[in-house]
Amino acid sequence: MYRSHHCGELRSENIGHEVTLAGWVQRTRNMGGMTFVDLRDRYGITQLSFNLEKDEKLCEAARKLGREFVIQVQGVVIERESKNDRLDTGHIEIEVRELKVLNESQTPPFTIEDETDGGEEVRMKYRYLDLRRNPLRKNLELRHKLGFETRKFLSDQGFLEIETPYLIKSTPEGARDFVVPSRMHGGEFYALPQSPQTFKQILMVGGYDRYFQIVRCFRDEDLRADRQPEFTQIDCEMAFVEQEDILNTFESLVRHLFQEVKGIDLPDYQRLTYAEAMRRYGSDKPDIRFDMEFVELTDVAQGKDFVVFDSAEIVVGICAKGAASYTRKQLDQLTDFVKRPQIGAKGLIYCRVNEDGSMKSSVDKFFNEADLQQWKSKFNAEPGDLILVLAGETDKTRKQLNELRLEMGNQLGLRDSKTYAPLWVIDFPLLEWDEDGKRFLAMHHPFTSPKPEHLSLLDSDPGSINANAYDMVINGVELGGGSIRIHDQKLQARMFEILGFTKEEAEKQFGFLMGAFKYGAPPHGGIAFGFDRLAAMFGGTDSIRDYIAFPKNNAGRDLMIDSPSSISADQLEELSLNITQE
Amino acid sequence: MYRSHHCGELRSENIGHEVTLAGWVQRTRNMGGMTFVDLRDRYGITQLSFNLEKDEKLCEAARKLGREFVIQVQGVVIERESKNDRLDTGHIEIEVRELKVLNESQTPPFTIEDETDGGEEVRMKYRYLDLRRNPLRKNLELRHKLGFETRKFLSDQGFLEIETPYLIKSTPEGARDFVVPSRMHGGEFYALPQSPQTFKQILMVGGYDRYFQIVRCFRDEDLRADRQPEFTQIDCEMAFVEQEDILNTFESLVRHLFQEVKGIDLPDYQRLTYAEAMRRYGSDKPDIRFDMEFVELTDVAQGKDFVVFDSAEIVVGICAKGAASYTRKQLDQLTDFVKRPQIGAKGLIYCRVNEDGSMKSSVDKFFNEADLQQWKSKFNAEPGDLILVLAGETDKTRKQLNELRLEMGNQLGLRDSKTYAPLWVIDFPLLEWDEDGKRFLAMHHPFTSPKPEHLSLLDSDPGSINANAYDMVINGVELGGGSIRIHDQKLQARMFEILGFTKEEAEKQFGFLMGAFKYGAPPHGGIAFGFDRLAAMFGGTDSIRDYIAFPKNNAGRDLMIDSPSSISADQLEELSLNITQE
Repeated sequence: MYRSHHCGELRSENIGHEVTLAGWVQRTRNMGGMTFVDLRDRYGITQLSFNLEKDEKLCEAARKLGREFVIQVQGVVIERESKNDRLDTGHIEIEVRELKVLNESQTPPFTIEDETDGGEEVRMKYRYLDLRRNPLRKNLELRHKLGFETRKFLSDQGFLEIETPYLIKSTPEGARDFVVPSRMHGGEFYALPQSPQTFKQILMVGGYDRYFQIVRCFRDEDLRADRQPEFTQIDCEMAFVEQEDILNTFESLVRHLFQEVKGIDLPDYQRLTYAEAMRRYGSDKPDIRFDMEFVELTDVAQGKDFVVFDSAEIVVGICAKGAASYTRKQLDQLTDFVKRPQIGAKGLIYCRVNEDGSMKSSVDKFFNEADLQQWKSKFNAEPGDLILVLAGETDKTRKQLNELRLEMGNQLGLRDSKTYAPLWVIDFPLLEWDEDGKRFLAMHHPFTSPKPEHLSLLDSDPGSINANAYDMVINGVELGGGSIRIHDQKLQARMFEILGFTKEEAEKQFGFLMGAFKYGAPPHGGIAFGFDRLAAMFGGTDSIRDYIAFPKNNAGRDLMIDSPSSISADQLEELSLNITQE
Repeated sequence: MYRSHHCGELRSENIGHEVTLAGWVQRTRNMGGMTFVDLRDRYGITQLSFNLEKDEKLCEAARKLGREFVIQVQGVVIERESKNDRLDTGHIEIEVRELKVLNESQTPPFTIEDETDGGEEVRMKYRYLDLRRNPLRKNLELRHKLGFETRKFLSDQGFLEIETPYLIKSTPEGARDFVVPSRMHGGEFYALPQSPQTFKQILMVGGYDRYFQIVRCFRDEDLRADRQPEFTQIDCEMAFVEQEDILNTFESLVRHLFQEVKGIDLPDYQRLTYAEAMRRYGSDKPDIRFDMEFVELTDVAQGKDFVVFDSAEIVVGICAKGAASYTRKQLDQLTDFVKRPQIGAKGLIYCRVNEDGSMKSSVDKFFNEADLQQWKSKFNAEPGDLILVLAGETDKTRKQLNELRLEMGNQLGLRDSKTYAPLWVIDFPLLEWDEDGKRFLAMHHPFTSPKPEHLSLLDSDPGSINANAYDMVINGVELGGGSIRIHDQKLQARMFEILGFTKEEAEKQFGFLMGAFKYGAPPHGGIAFGFDRLAAMFGGTDSIRDYIAFPKNNAGRDLMIDSPSSISADQLEELSLNITQE
């Protein structure tokens, strides 16, 4: 062992002890005849002191230490003259007797500090240095703890963690698969799983009753800022359950995690149907830390010769409490905000409620005080409030207003990062219409069970069917989602038909699952949580990349190891492959 | 919830309770006016009773239930007339009031019993049915427990579980990689990791101090019976440690697992150097549950005109206690055993120690009684013992004799499956000479540190260098292995050179690691355990396939999902690939 203690361990009660420490040089300071070195490891920082008068050679050696040198020291724990209460070890220091350089270091390309000076690209290339910074270390420690507590809770509830294969079979549904050419079976491919969905259902058919797995999943998508080609799920499935059982079980899991990891008692979960969530918040993952619910004005706003409203399917707005003081400039910025291409509104109508209760709007040309008082009463608006209104096609307008609502929540400080408002969104539609492909797509996935009371609509009006599907949403972030599954072979076959599979395609891709359903499949359902996102939410930030030890960049590239990369001609030949273009 | 209790839960104290159960029909028996159904789930079996007189319709319905039907019943717990003490629920049964078939089942292609009548192929195809059998269920429960206890122990010791990427970079060293074509970077490939070796070293450079991960690894090898293209490792690494620290830490881990999972106190670990293990047992993973150590006869056996011995590099044997009674037929079978192509010996010499202490050998033509008495004394053989001798090239002959020793151990009942004899094999050679490639290969991997005292041999005699490398062996099974790593950039570069890498190759493949070593790499080392094999050892069998939920067959094929399989022309085009042959 290179050390008797680690760098976060020594306290006043150790004064007088002979110790050996090892770690990295965080910083060296020369103060007259003394040299101080901050020695760092995962556990903390301990101050080393070298006295020029007592041991000149040793002190000179200490003065030559560079940042990030790896050293081992022997010495005695002494009381510190100027104590540092911000450090756990701040009351002591080590009077060093022996110093050994275990490894030197070049000067790092950026500083290893909480706030670093390195750009994202260079920090990804030198990930081993970035990982030394406290914020990243704390993130990965948090992730470890979340994983362990998840396993503990679920194991205590009788769940078994069962590993499912990574080399599976490509299915052209949904997102693109990564594929893996087989050498032994030239021209054939495995695929990496987008999720262990069918395997966990097979485990239910196999009688495993309660399954979970913290498991890597893969999706070959064009990456957005917050997506990774490989990501981790907490994947769960239960047999002999109804939706209510799943919601209760996993509410308890997340409650346990908040309690154990953050020491927070999560408030009760609210529930919203998908339809309600869209109507009241314009989003299937509303942030309900604050109200500012949508109010529809269509009936009172139309027929006043304002063509924007009159031609709209919906006129809908929000009331921002106390924001009547917004300046013209601020209102223009809000208009610019909703007109950005990512949001796509054509314009923004506003209406201030003055201190005397009278109204002042951007559409005074079309609406008189009496009209606007109608708005005010619809919103229950009070003096000092600001009403913001959008109009257009229902779905689009609601989505735009959702963005505006979140932005106003931010601007008014209503999205407190220390407040957690958990929510289940339930009763998702079973299908969504794909205008391009002129066909129905599964909103969740093809294994989701229709609500039993909607089964009769399968032939007449499949688009109106709701599913036993649910999402867990906290503070506007979708942490997980799942559904009760189909366990009847005939219903599953019918679903594939509705989704446009031929019998042959369904059989080729999912024959094993439909086969399994012929041998006594129990009712079952489950849920999957995005583990990267869960960790980020617990860490209090949005960037999942900071919670992954070795993330890829937006081009799906690992800048540290420089991958993907070319492979040898021999390898290609063994795999029976040619590259068509480079 | 479809049930108030599961099928392993009800006891005498529940008599009189109204309950709801759900599960699979294991078996139906009609006894006069009564019908009994064994209802099964993961947790156990509960007997259901139906009385023809009390409720004819219900009883008739029960009589129509087929094997593996999924049913739900409501009823009252009553005392069982003929109690079954082998079942936890054997004192009660359920007098059923209501019966609901949740799903029917076709007749399974094999019986769902502890000893099934299904062949391997059909059981893999219908894995969901095979998984219902008790032995497999117990195996996966054991695996879950081993995984959980491993995580608990290591977390308690300050290890962090950190996930490393699955989409990494191909390195032509060692076994073949599975590769993953990149769509976004046409013509380039990721590779699936054979182990997270370089990433865990990077984590040590990043200051994480103690890392572990239970992680899937991939190797595209021509499969042997006990190999899988994907397998799971318990992968561990520690910084600021010497070999002794690693051995102690992971001895404790395995001791903890034996204690928690099997309730067994593991005896002390023995230690053998690689050289000693080869000399005394002819194997780097000897089964030391029994002695039967090798004894070399070269000096006393040569020069007696027996050309087989005289032309041999080594004459070496074992003494099988009490086996002098082996018949001629048994001895012929042993000779056939060592002459099998997998073992490859040319013949077997035996020598019985008679009850009167005299000797009777298969080479009496060449050796007189006095010669044979010399053998006897070398072996410390006693009346009733059987000496078995092989001769030839040293390495080959030792390996052959190892096989014979294990076979004799089996035949003489010396390999008790309830006895555990743990062992560290240490001081492995750093390199092995590859006769085909006329070059050195890394025996462990290119990151293994030479013993410091052997560093001076790097230029003069690299083949004689030993490494700080170690294997954990229990009962002749290698459970894990590891090494202290190189952490000096120059030494690592020199190692690549010795292994025949050009500077460019080394830089292209491992530049990031050598780069990392320039920024303060701490001394570090680690170990990895084969988790599938560990589970099999704890389960008491050799077949790792029975400890994997969804294994592949010897051709690397998943028979249930039928993978690998072809992919669409569109997918190939997107990946910029052509298939050269089918």
